[in-house]
Amino acid sequence: MKKGLLIVLSGPSGVGKGTVCRSLQARMPGLCFSVSATTRPPRPGEIEGRDYYFLSDDHFQRLLAEGAFLEWALVHGRHYGTLKDKVSKVLASGNDLLLEIDIQGAEQVRRQMPEAVTIFMAPPSMAALEQRIIGRGTEDAVKIRQRLEAARREMEAYRNYEYLVVNDEVEATAALLASIIQSEKCRVSRGARPPVQEVSE
Amino acid sequence: MKKGLLIVLSGPSGVGKGTVCRSLQARMPGLCFSVSATTRPPRPGEIEGRDYYFLSDDHFQRLLAEGAFLEWALVHGRHYGTLKDKVSKVLASGNDLLLEIDIQGAEQVRRQMPEAVTIFMAPPSMAALEQRIIGRGTEDAVKIRQRLEAARREMEAYRNYEYLVVNDEVEATAALLASIIQSEKCRVSRGARPPVQEVSE
Repeated sequence: MKKGLLIVLSGPSGVGKGTVCRSLQARMPGLCFSVSATTRPPRPGEIEGRDYYFLSDDHFQRLLAEGAFLEWALVHGRHYGTLKDKVSKVLASGNDLLLEIDIQGAEQVRRQMPEAVTIFMAPPSMAALEQRIIGRGTEDAVKIRQRLEAARREMEAYRNYEYLVVNDEVEATAALLASIIQSEKCRVSRGARPPVQEVSE
Repeated sequence: MKKGLLIVLSGPSGVGKGTVCRSLQARMPGLCFSVSATTRPPRPGEIEGRDYYFLSDDHFQRLLAEGAFLEWALVHGRHYGTLKDKVSKVLASGNDLLLEIDIQGAEQVRRQMPEAVTIFMAPPSMAALEQRIIGRGTEDAVKIRQRLEAARREMEAYRNYEYLVVNDEVEATAALLASIIQSEKCRVSRGARPPVQEVSE
């Protein structure tokens, strides 16, 4: 069976990756979305295996020591990571898998799986990104300033990606992501072949 | 201004390139389609500059000697070719240009413009292609046999292309071509950049 495609979607914090992914999921029901492992406790309504794999600190550390993560990060004292074997299983079954991760995670995936299709999502302008970050309204001024600075630095990372999409409007961005995935599946270098190989007389 | 994209669409004779291109044209009104030069006389209804550039044999030979063609061929005693300066003008104006040409022409373009996006259109099966070639009903048995043999040989060329699309159904194929063109425009290696480059403080 032909292996599925690994698609890495990343971009600065606040660019709207999550919203676009929900639209993409509706558009491409056959596309799988990676589920992260985390040591943070489940929030009300979150379901094990759908939203996250919820792990104890010990369990996460053991998996980390085993090299079980394709990428991982420590955020606000909680661990998050993508398990290699979950990714491999989806791809081996011939399904395409999208990883929606931050810039640092994407760097780790690129190193381990250079065959991944990498897509950078950019805001229509820095001002738009700043408004989004400020508009969440959940953080104090210092946190906001830190996040804005991080976002500006993260913007530079686009150079390391194969594709850049500008998230001007959610539906248009999701359509563009679908186009990129569909066209990657047509690449001869990725194994696209004519459907028939009859023996010529 | 950012240069337009040159897209080369090719495939075996009879695969349905022309029909798909008409659908693509309706789908992407901003996409330009290359107009060939030819020494064959205009048919009723054909318009200079829209259907072909109609040239005398002398004129064509002079342009050929000057190296003015990106690709050319002699078919049934008539010359056909794509003029370099027509292609350059469209691309320099920032418009994308699609060249719908045969396998031999595509080889010539690839050599001269390796930056072209190359797409091979394959039939859903060799049987389907044979039916299309026979079904035109305009040629005798010997001609048909020759065309079938040529088509089988031409199928092997797909290995030299970046993309392969299977022409199962016209509208779906045109949608896939549009996806490929749109996604190529998002490639960082082709100059895709974030829309803003404000100076960081």
